[in-house]
Amino acid sequence: MSNFNIAVCQMLVGEDKNKNLEKAEKMIRRAVLEKNAKVIVLPEMFNCPYDNSYFPQFAEEVPGPTTEMLSKIAKELKVYIVGGSIPEQSGSEIYNTSFIFNDEGEIVGRHRKIHLFDIDIEGGIVFKESDTLGRGDEITVVDTPMGKIGVAICYDIRFPELIRLMALNEAKIIIIPAAFNTTTGPAHWNELIKVRAFDNQVYLVAASPARDLEASYHAYGYSSIIDPWGKIIDQCSEVEAIISGEIDMDYLNKVRKELPLLKHRRTDLYHLDLR
Amino acid sequence: MSNFNIAVCQMLVGEDKNKNLEKAEKMIRRAVLEKNAKVIVLPEMFNCPYDNSYFPQFAEEVPGPTTEMLSKIAKELKVYIVGGSIPEQSGSEIYNTSFIFNDEGEIVGRHRKIHLFDIDIEGGIVFKESDTLGRGDEITVVDTPMGKIGVAICYDIRFPELIRLMALNEAKIIIIPAAFNTTTGPAHWNELIKVRAFDNQVYLVAASPARDLEASYHAYGYSSIIDPWGKIIDQCSEVEAIISGEIDMDYLNKVRKELPLLKHRRTDLYHLDLR
Repeated sequence: MSNFNIAVCQMLVGEDKNKNLEKAEKMIRRAVLEKNAKVIVLPEMFNCPYDNSYFPQFAEEVPGPTTEMLSKIAKELKVYIVGGSIPEQSGSEIYNTSFIFNDEGEIVGRHRKIHLFDIDIEGGIVFKESDTLGRGDEITVVDTPMGKIGVAICYDIRFPELIRLMALNEAKIIIIPAAFNTTTGPAHWNELIKVRAFDNQVYLVAASPARDLEASYHAYGYSSIIDPWGKIIDQCSEVEAIISGEIDMDYLNKVRKELPLLKHRRTDLYHLDLR
Repeated sequence: MSNFNIAVCQMLVGEDKNKNLEKAEKMIRRAVLEKNAKVIVLPEMFNCPYDNSYFPQFAEEVPGPTTEMLSKIAKELKVYIVGGSIPEQSGSEIYNTSFIFNDEGEIVGRHRKIHLFDIDIEGGIVFKESDTLGRGDEITVVDTPMGKIGVAICYDIRFPELIRLMALNEAKIIIIPAAFNTTTGPAHWNELIKVRAFDNQVYLVAASPARDLEASYHAYGYSSIIDPWGKIIDQCSEVEAIISGEIDMDYLNKVRKELPLLKHRRTDLYHLDLR
């Protein structure tokens, strides 16, 4: 497979779902036109404000208006789309779910956030996703003609076991739709995305919404594309932006050959497995 | 246990073993006098230049002159010493080994480097520890009155499985005698030590030799003490220095309560164990 471009649409998410979908569609079109992207990534909860009070109200069954829009545009533009995440209604449960579309508009993967964000920091952020959301139970690695793509959502990246298991399942690109905040973002974001990339020697693509200071939750922003050596290929600030970078599997293989971390694991001493 | 200070002696290591031991002893005394340290940490290969051609020549059986010196001074000053590492002769094998001394001068722990550093980066560092060294086979967590202390050496820190297992074995302070270099140091050092600290919500203490541009191997330096939120408490540059920081278990427990990462692991989906 030859090199290709991946783009992240760091969009501002508002309280009008239709406007969010229009914004997402416009930015996807721009990512293809301006960045020649073959894979486009949206942020966590790109169609809904990140707030427990909105999740039930914005949740939709699949197929629904959001996945229909993404399917249509993926097919029209002949691109892969990692559809950030949306509140997905499934029976009586709501999940924080990422749908992955191939270039024919078919859903080829689905990740329901595994680790829910329940946090209470003195003088900082308080949030309890488990008040409204259900937990996913599967690790998500999707086979594509461009290589295997792993998807996990936001707080999932906190758990090195999960990202390592995705790499051991041969993910070469790991995509993290995320909405870190202004407490955890400055403290941990850059370090976390770099280390997960160079520990596992993968391309790591992290997609945040833009920051909205009028919303209850202040997303950190700083969407990033990191190479397998841990270098930032592209990164924006907290405002709306499209970033992009080239995925080069020859470079990935070079890094893995020069510093053979995955081979040097002492699997005779410890083991990490899916249950 | 009340709070206490830990110090790192970032010493310049030369080709004269006796001078290295004298230097180590002097810096340990200064760490106690100037920093009121209760635990003192030395760097990887503090008695021997980091070079395969020196390891066999400097290797010693235990007890030997190096461990005797450390034992004596730990007892005299009533402090714990994590004796960086030394080339340890054991039968026909040489290990890269850290000895841990209690405040009565007894050896209470021993870590033999588990992951050997075999790396060949185009235009950068080339090194193959396995040419001269044997591999350790044990994870090292030592119980002390100040809490459980985990010890791993340099390249060991590259493996998130190991550091996580030390935290799951209740290490609250993880000590890494290390000698990163001027290729991997600028690329990865700061990110790695911070993320291992805040992923596992431990104090992480990383001890490097000072940089010697006349030696074959250019150590990175930048010894650091990181708190469980990933904040740098103290850090030096590449020159000889003593750094120190306060270990506060109440703060560690506060971080773990506010952001309960270790509790949120999905052990129903994945498992990580010692074999």
